[in-house]
Amino acid sequence: MNHYGPRLSGLIDALRRLPGVGPKSAQRMAFHLLDRDRDGAADLAQALADALTGITHCPECRMFCEDGHCAYCSDARRAAGQICVVETPADLLAIESGTGYRGCYFVLMGHLSPLDGVGPDELGLGQLETTLAGGGVQELIIAINPSVEGEATAYYLAGMGRKHGAKVTRIAHGVPMGGELEYVNASTLSHALSGRTPA
Amino acid sequence: MNHYGPRLSGLIDALRRLPGVGPKSAQRMAFHLLDRDRDGAADLAQALADALTGITHCPECRMFCEDGHCAYCSDARRAAGQICVVETPADLLAIESGTGYRGCYFVLMGHLSPLDGVGPDELGLGQLETTLAGGGVQELIIAINPSVEGEATAYYLAGMGRKHGAKVTRIAHGVPMGGELEYVNASTLSHALSGRTPA
Repeated sequence: MNHYGPRLSGLIDALRRLPGVGPKSAQRMAFHLLDRDRDGAADLAQALADALTGITHCPECRMFCEDGHCAYCSDARRAAGQICVVETPADLLAIESGTGYRGCYFVLMGHLSPLDGVGPDELGLGQLETTLAGGGVQELIIAINPSVEGEATAYYLAGMGRKHGAKVTRIAHGVPMGGELEYVNASTLSHALSGRTPA
Repeated sequence: MNHYGPRLSGLIDALRRLPGVGPKSAQRMAFHLLDRDRDGAADLAQALADALTGITHCPECRMFCEDGHCAYCSDARRAAGQICVVETPADLLAIESGTGYRGCYFVLMGHLSPLDGVGPDELGLGQLETTLAGGGVQELIIAINPSVEGEATAYYLAGMGRKHGAKVTRIAHGVPMGGELEYVNASTLSHALSGRTPA
């Protein structure tokens, strides 16, 4: 017998739509918000509403942005001749914070997956092609995850880049720093060997 | 360099206030909601707002309720002569769904903790005392977690129950079903031994 009222059930169901939140966690979150942090619940409701109305995708690189253009595209100090293509905003942030790369980006927001109805249009590749066709892009850096769909997406992007005369590169796949050869999987080791560079 | 705009930062900070959600999870949730489940985000904002306005505490047992009285207190088939005191709504639901208990409840929403400013008033114990003084309560069942603060709370409750002539009982603490004596801690084992019952 479930004695939750409709509002409490509604809140628990809504919290379960968050990634990684199951029924027990959702119940715990709902009780915590109602019992100990009603201000936090009000803040969260307001933040969600603000985000939904105020956050859009940058028309140039498809990253999240809040005022027309994202901070990366509107930064004049960035090398406009380099475009690094990533799958998600989180990948972009990982490259931005972990490396010295200061060129431009293009965020696909996914990868090609015809079975799920995700084709070139859903990834905004027409937009990228327009940028490439405009000239001025010397290098297209493909930083896509090496999954099956990712490889197909990378292949498609490489063809598009070459068609417009850009140099197409892929980030290196190999043994991670701190990793041990003995424990690295065979596929990674093959990549590392075929991608060897002069020492 | 953090290139999040104020709305996205605000959303991530608000999500971090949920229990068990750290910075990485909050970022993942925010990106998921913005990128793949904007309907879910709108539903969550609405559910939070509805819950904040519509969910209050039952004036009798302090459980969450949505229309004046909770489903437990307003159920005439329940034994009004038994009151089971628990710390949280989750504890109430565990007892309700896991046992055959069909008496009334009283939810403390915490335990006595003078250092955190939680005294008898914060736990609504005045309200419980009024109920006890009204007579008609034969048994006060204490189902408080056996922590240090929980023990103090149970001691306080037992005194209050006895003062008003109610029979005071505590749920048994002992070896859990399926547990093995060898691996049960000493304190639990002592409780199990001193709480032995005729076979």
